[in-house]
Amino acid sequence: MKLSLNQKILSRNEEYAQKNRAFFAKHKVLCLNVISSPGAGKTTTLARTIRDMKDTLTIGVIEGDIKTDTDAQKIRAAGAEAVQIETKGACHLSAEQVHGVLKSIHADTKDVVFIENVGNLVCPSAFDLGEHKRVVILSIPEGDDKPVKYPGTFAGADVVLVNKIDLSDYIEFNLQRVLADICAVNPDAQIYQVSAATGEGMDAWYDWLCQQRQQITE
Amino acid sequence: MKLSLNQKILSRNEEYAQKNRAFFAKHKVLCLNVISSPGAGKTTTLARTIRDMKDTLTIGVIEGDIKTDTDAQKIRAAGAEAVQIETKGACHLSAEQVHGVLKSIHADTKDVVFIENVGNLVCPSAFDLGEHKRVVILSIPEGDDKPVKYPGTFAGADVVLVNKIDLSDYIEFNLQRVLADICAVNPDAQIYQVSAATGEGMDAWYDWLCQQRQQITE
Repeated sequence: MKLSLNQKILSRNEEYAQKNRAFFAKHKVLCLNVISSPGAGKTTTLARTIRDMKDTLTIGVIEGDIKTDTDAQKIRAAGAEAVQIETKGACHLSAEQVHGVLKSIHADTKDVVFIENVGNLVCPSAFDLGEHKRVVILSIPEGDDKPVKYPGTFAGADVVLVNKIDLSDYIEFNLQRVLADICAVNPDAQIYQVSAATGEGMDAWYDWLCQQRQQITE
Repeated sequence: MKLSLNQKILSRNEEYAQKNRAFFAKHKVLCLNVISSPGAGKTTTLARTIRDMKDTLTIGVIEGDIKTDTDAQKIRAAGAEAVQIETKGACHLSAEQVHGVLKSIHADTKDVVFIENVGNLVCPSAFDLGEHKRVVILSIPEGDDKPVKYPGTFAGADVVLVNKIDLSDYIEFNLQRVLADICAVNPDAQIYQVSAATGEGMDAWYDWLCQQRQQITE
């Protein structure tokens, strides 16, 4: 019974993920699903990206949180349209929730739509939202053991941003171990070392973003 | 159908939580369920507690992780018996899983058993493991908005350890806001500011721990 219910939930999610995928394909909108632990820097990364890329890309953001719309407010302050989904306790966004808010941020008019998932390194990775690519953010203070402890999430990443490198001098963190452990579960992942707070290393991430956007419009 | 299945899962969990509660009561063992985001410092906090309190309390630890037994190894290196539960993808520990390993760490002979839950600020808070008290750890680098964004977890805490205060000089963090936001959802929570890395502030936490242990043996 448990399996069949899980299958039903996942099948309903997949149905809406396909609808979202068709929407993004039709309107040539690059969609990225951003996943991390609470406080790894998802919103700060997106806010800086919006500010730095404002002359190059039109960006919209779908924000997921258990409660509050503070992240959507931060994104709007950075200059992009944003909509907040409050999951009221749920530990991840669903494709259906995403589908329900596409119009409200005029997603069809954007070059890139980011979906900032609920802060959680486990549950969001099981739910396809219809995105083109998945971005996982790992911050230095979380420790260098996270890729081996949460292999499913890192296996599903197209890009990993190792964030908060400005704190490297104050925190023990074995970067070589992290690179090797991500490679072991996901040899194709692109990995960039960044500080969304200071801007260090962000250019490589922006280049990747523009390449992805380019690819879907060709 | 969804509700009744959830109720069935929770009811089975509650059945085992009651068994665990009876076990801990019978053997006068204080049981604490430790919840936090990935990388907030659960294992470091427990390892330091074990080392600092080795002449005062006999401690055992049940470790929960999606994958790897590295945390159990760290706890053993600190001098306590530990057992690792690999949840193989599940985002929280269940009371049944805890029940299954009580014998292997000779839990009946301990003064305190810590259950280190899977790193996740959402799901573990919905599952009673039969513990006496719940400890939530929030680390400075995660940001001061976590209590408002994850109110359920903070509402269920008996103690909140605000960890990594040694990084306060390098990270913007409004402690007054955190104290107020925790108080708003949970006025009875004890809050201690600590650094498990340096040992700063840990004495107040140890005092609380000894008081709790005292209370259940009276």
